[in-house]
Amino acid sequence: LERSGHLKAADSPVFSSGSLNQFIAAGKPAWSKARGAVSSLLRHDNPILRDDEALRAKALWPRSVVCMHPPVQIGGYTDFYSSREHATNVGRMFRGEANALMPNWLYMPIGYNGRASTVVVDGTPVQRPLGQIKPQNADGPVFAASEKFDFELEIGFIVGRPSSMGEFLSVEKAQDAIFGFVLLNDWSARDIQAWEYQPLGPFQSKATATTISAWVVLAEALEPFRIDGPRQDPKPFPYLRQRGPHNYDIRLEVALRPRGSDEATTIARTNFGYMYWSSAQQLAHHSICGCAMNVGDLLGSGTISGPEESQYGSLLELTWNGAQPLQLGGGVKRAFLEDGDTLEIHGFCQGAGYRIGFGGCSGTVLPAAMLASARSAAPSVVL
Amino acid sequence: LERSGHLKAADSPVFSSGSLNQFIAAGKPAWSKARGAVSSLLRHDNPILRDDEALRAKALWPRSVVCMHPPVQIGGYTDFYSSREHATNVGRMFRGEANALMPNWLYMPIGYNGRASTVVVDGTPVQRPLGQIKPQNADGPVFAASEKFDFELEIGFIVGRPSSMGEFLSVEKAQDAIFGFVLLNDWSARDIQAWEYQPLGPFQSKATATTISAWVVLAEALEPFRIDGPRQDPKPFPYLRQRGPHNYDIRLEVALRPRGSDEATTIARTNFGYMYWSSAQQLAHHSICGCAMNVGDLLGSGTISGPEESQYGSLLELTWNGAQPLQLGGGVKRAFLEDGDTLEIHGFCQGAGYRIGFGGCSGTVLPAAMLASARSAAPSVVL
Repeated sequence: LERSGHLKAADSPVFSSGSLNQFIAAGKPAWSKARGAVSSLLRHDNPILRDDEALRAKALWPRSVVCMHPPVQIGGYTDFYSSREHATNVGRMFRGEANALMPNWLYMPIGYNGRASTVVVDGTPVQRPLGQIKPQNADGPVFAASEKFDFELEIGFIVGRPSSMGEFLSVEKAQDAIFGFVLLNDWSARDIQAWEYQPLGPFQSKATATTISAWVVLAEALEPFRIDGPRQDPKPFPYLRQRGPHNYDIRLEVALRPRGSDEATTIARTNFGYMYWSSAQQLAHHSICGCAMNVGDLLGSGTISGPEESQYGSLLELTWNGAQPLQLGGGVKRAFLEDGDTLEIHGFCQGAGYRIGFGGCSGTVLPAAMLASARSAAPSVVL
Repeated sequence: LERSGHLKAADSPVFSSGSLNQFIAAGKPAWSKARGAVSSLLRHDNPILRDDEALRAKALWPRSVVCMHPPVQIGGYTDFYSSREHATNVGRMFRGEANALMPNWLYMPIGYNGRASTVVVDGTPVQRPLGQIKPQNADGPVFAASEKFDFELEIGFIVGRPSSMGEFLSVEKAQDAIFGFVLLNDWSARDIQAWEYQPLGPFQSKATATTISAWVVLAEALEPFRIDGPRQDPKPFPYLRQRGPHNYDIRLEVALRPRGSDEATTIARTNFGYMYWSSAQQLAHHSICGCAMNVGDLLGSGTISGPEESQYGSLLELTWNGAQPLQLGGGVKRAFLEDGDTLEIHGFCQGAGYRIGFGGCSGTVLPAAMLASARSAAPSVVL
């Protein structure tokens, strides 16, 4: 469409490379212009595509015949931990009721740097990781495949405006720097994590893969779905203060299709609106030490859990660390993910008579150390 | 030299871009070939440069008139914690003698993902970070400039061979994938770190800046300086086992030049050979969960401390968290870095009649929130 002259986002072409980065770097007016142009081209009363069969054949492809690639070349990947419900659940399990929420948690969006090199797109199979695990009551660790391989339901956002070393972003500037949002699954090996994470945080337990959906929903498209987040008490420091609604009403569902089954069972339904810290606050906090941000940086929200048990965003919480396995269809039970299981995340915003869809964010668990053979056996798999 | 036909590392030119990444991606034979060619060109009995004044004028520039840039475009930046002395010192200070070393520490190289976007080159000024700090005995944090801004003496290495998701690197393969080594200063805000690091590890306290030296010493050049590291007990898991000497005898010095002074005082002398986990073991561990590595990834050793107090690689250890300030020249004392202080790291290998130099790795501390004005006042500063 750009080549045919019907989609002009910036002064020079931005859609001919293998990722959206060039388009994103063209800046916010370009995002808005492209969004308007695509929307207009798809209208029933616009003849450009509607009446031009040759152009349609070049511009529109059935999803069944295309292979989706990662939408963005990720620079840095940061993962936050901003659902109060999730942080409290995890804290309860590992530190007891009294110390469930760490004292710093209510003062700032807690986060850590993830590994950008293993961010993959919807549909990419994920190999069960190997690592060190300390069995309960054992003196030392064993080397084994993870037995507590889990998902984390998240929303990620893509930074659209670079900031230099020493540049601080206010919450307003941070909001303005957000290009758009994706679904995100932060695959997590709980047993590897439990042994490795002290004192420097999760590392290899989170580096196996992070899956994102194949397209980015522009922040502009979500404007009608802004809602208030939870009341923040204590009142945040001025650099984290925001006015007006900074959360989004995005409905989220997680389904698990066990190995050998055609049927996926919905195991959680929750909403992005539950997040305690907003995406804009996360980005503002990320820049306060002078950290530079680049176009294409990915920031994850952290696991999105709601107050109800059916709204938990991880198997760790849904099965309470495996103690209460989930009952799926056909008498199948799951404590954590088994080989061959497929985990799917879907999300959408519900407007009056329309939906904004985030697509899917799915992955099938391969047995440990089998990825190489899976790759040669299935050349159409995106890796 | 490449353009003049005297430096051919690969089939096509690799030195015309702004970083070494293209050269690195050309592979190990290219590294070796370029090293041999440069060495030959600089010999007294090689007439090519020696007798060609015009070529010399194009190829050789005095260091005083050039501005050094970062040698490599960094993909991912990972920082380890592999000096037993450093980990024990920090543990003693914050958890007491009994729990000084975490139980996982002797089983694997503990590490975390750092922030690649703020890796800067030797000479870049570094702005004191702002952040949240919890004063002793206070109920909650304050928002302020760090008062415990510190350095960490490290060696970094650059990954030279990509590995894909799910590909495991043995220690031997990992050793082979190391392009070369740099000096590294992992600037650290201890007070911000203490408040933020539970439970996900250091984040903003380490994201202000990481300084590396301006050239990379090839792993091949260090072959004559391989030495045994400390004995590893318990015996590492097979995936971490190495044969023969995997440490390097690199002598390291740290000097501090206080604000307003012309004189730098050497505050620590240590050796890279003290590291408990080798660089090859770090890279092998990094890949064991299936994490992909890319050309240009930077892995830091972790603070290099030796057994003696004069060998500690951070002010945290040298001043025991500020309790025993250092005595510098002219009656100046330092607990942590003050504005205007310059921290310099130097390193070299001492051969029989020759040295292999790592150059410098220095930075001057600017007052908090002053970087923007420093930049416009000093246009020659590399940022």
